[in-house]
Amino acid sequence: MQESSDRATRPASPRPVGVIGLGAMGMGVARTLVRKGFEVHACDLREHARAEIRAAGGHAHETPAAVAERVSALIVLVVNAQQTEAVLFGPQGAAEALAAGSVVIASSTVAPDVAERLGERLAAMGLRLLDAPVSGGAARAASGEMTVMASGAPDTFAAVEDVLGAIAARVYRLGDAPGMGSKVKMINQLLAGVHIAAATEAMALGIRAGIDAGQLYEVISNSAGASWMFQNRVPHILAGDYTPLSAVNIFVKDLGIVLDSARQLTFPLPLTSAAHQMYLATSACGLGGEDDSAVIKMFQRLTDIALPEPKA
Amino acid sequence: MQESSDRATRPASPRPVGVIGLGAMGMGVARTLVRKGFEVHACDLREHARAEIRAAGGHAHETPAAVAERVSALIVLVVNAQQTEAVLFGPQGAAEALAAGSVVIASSTVAPDVAERLGERLAAMGLRLLDAPVSGGAARAASGEMTVMASGAPDTFAAVEDVLGAIAARVYRLGDAPGMGSKVKMINQLLAGVHIAAATEAMALGIRAGIDAGQLYEVISNSAGASWMFQNRVPHILAGDYTPLSAVNIFVKDLGIVLDSARQLTFPLPLTSAAHQMYLATSACGLGGEDDSAVIKMFQRLTDIALPEPKA
Repeated sequence: MQESSDRATRPASPRPVGVIGLGAMGMGVARTLVRKGFEVHACDLREHARAEIRAAGGHAHETPAAVAERVSALIVLVVNAQQTEAVLFGPQGAAEALAAGSVVIASSTVAPDVAERLGERLAAMGLRLLDAPVSGGAARAASGEMTVMASGAPDTFAAVEDVLGAIAARVYRLGDAPGMGSKVKMINQLLAGVHIAAATEAMALGIRAGIDAGQLYEVISNSAGASWMFQNRVPHILAGDYTPLSAVNIFVKDLGIVLDSARQLTFPLPLTSAAHQMYLATSACGLGGEDDSAVIKMFQRLTDIALPEPKA
Repeated sequence: MQESSDRATRPASPRPVGVIGLGAMGMGVARTLVRKGFEVHACDLREHARAEIRAAGGHAHETPAAVAERVSALIVLVVNAQQTEAVLFGPQGAAEALAAGSVVIASSTVAPDVAERLGERLAAMGLRLLDAPVSGGAARAASGEMTVMASGAPDTFAAVEDVLGAIAARVYRLGDAPGMGSKVKMINQLLAGVHIAAATEAMALGIRAGIDAGQLYEVISNSAGASWMFQNRVPHILAGDYTPLSAVNIFVKDLGIVLDSARQLTFPLPLTSAAHQMYLATSACGLGGEDDSAVIKMFQRLTDIALPEPKA
């Protein structure tokens, strides 16, 4: 009964949706869309990622153009602005291959002015941009419960409402023009980056002062010093597990975007600046590819504190 | 029925407890103890505070000594280490007037080494110290739901278990010797101070970038950039209400304690240092007595952003 009822509400032919970039976030989004009945066309430079989405029931392609000619809604979830521009406008890029009126959902973290220029460039080609960065991490991408911070024209939102509904628990509509979504995401990254760095500074000092790390985590979690990032990242430190869920170098990039954007506005950011230096220092130690909680290892290199060891 | 049952469990004569310092926190604690059936003896330099606790059903005195000679459990909730030492050991101080074996519950935020020395000095006089800083703010002090971060000998905890149970929702037992309670509180203040400063930096940049402040608060509250302090303090900014619940100068002091203690350990704190400078800069603007969220006014002085106005 339940199953036939489910089937009855599905369209006769599933809607095709494209996903460019099958990293931690993109793979979760692509698999979520397959699970919810969309016809998913995806691409990634890495063969093992293409094999994974194929095994999950999606269609894998070698170029953005091959994806683009099969869909009218295309999610771009690559690492940065440079990659976003390459997959859209580079050789075998998606933009030339999309039918007029198609919607590009740009979900990578990019500077607000990059999102604005992207919208203008796509509009000149008859395409529509939703400036739609996401928050929530790989786990929420995989479960279809991301937070989307989006701006774009009302008809653009309407054209991809089903796609957004499938991948996000919350969609914030932040205005009619590309740029505002990326501005709000930039402020979120400012706080996320400062809070992770602050969590490492606090735990490092606590350990140096002789406080039991696990007890400190427990007390702070229930006190006014708590943050979403403290709760989420300190367990990595306690477990001695720096497998990158989000790497140090991501915040070298993201806080770099915040600082560059603020400098354009002649706006001083003392805390963001100090936090950025901490990520840079950690990356300089050769730890840029580790989990962002590895900023605490910078304190270890300086002060020789004993960090929790991974369980054998 | 309920009432007579309640009465039956109360001691024939209520237990006397002392409270020194009737500021935002101390007054809440004193009123909570009165409400829960203790015989409260309190003192404060300010006559209006003494009148308030008297009206609430407590006994007010003019000196710490007058309080001390009537109680065997004494809570000290004054502004800092200097005041703590003055009310205990200064003229008309409490320590000389307490009976041997009495317990001092020191709940002001002080440096860990100050708490250690305080314990030694009281022990030499035959008195017992519970190093017991608190978190939760004035609202939780008033409702009897503070978090207490305490260290001290097991018999000291046992002697004031009823008092702690009355004023706190959570009591963390952090070790057998004074000092550890204040160390954990210090780490909490490090994070609280950095998070408030980060919240003002983020909101200020968001406003400068043209984001609606209320919408930004809503999105961040549900994203990875959230913190306890962001949730608690940004509403003051949105309301344009800088009535001090906790003042800028409290963090000038508290982050100063953190930096001094870390310097003694030769431990660098890049974020705490930057945040401390922001509180100092705000205090230098003449705003040290305003709510700590007024750090955003430092950004306003520098960049002329338009902050939300108070409602008429």
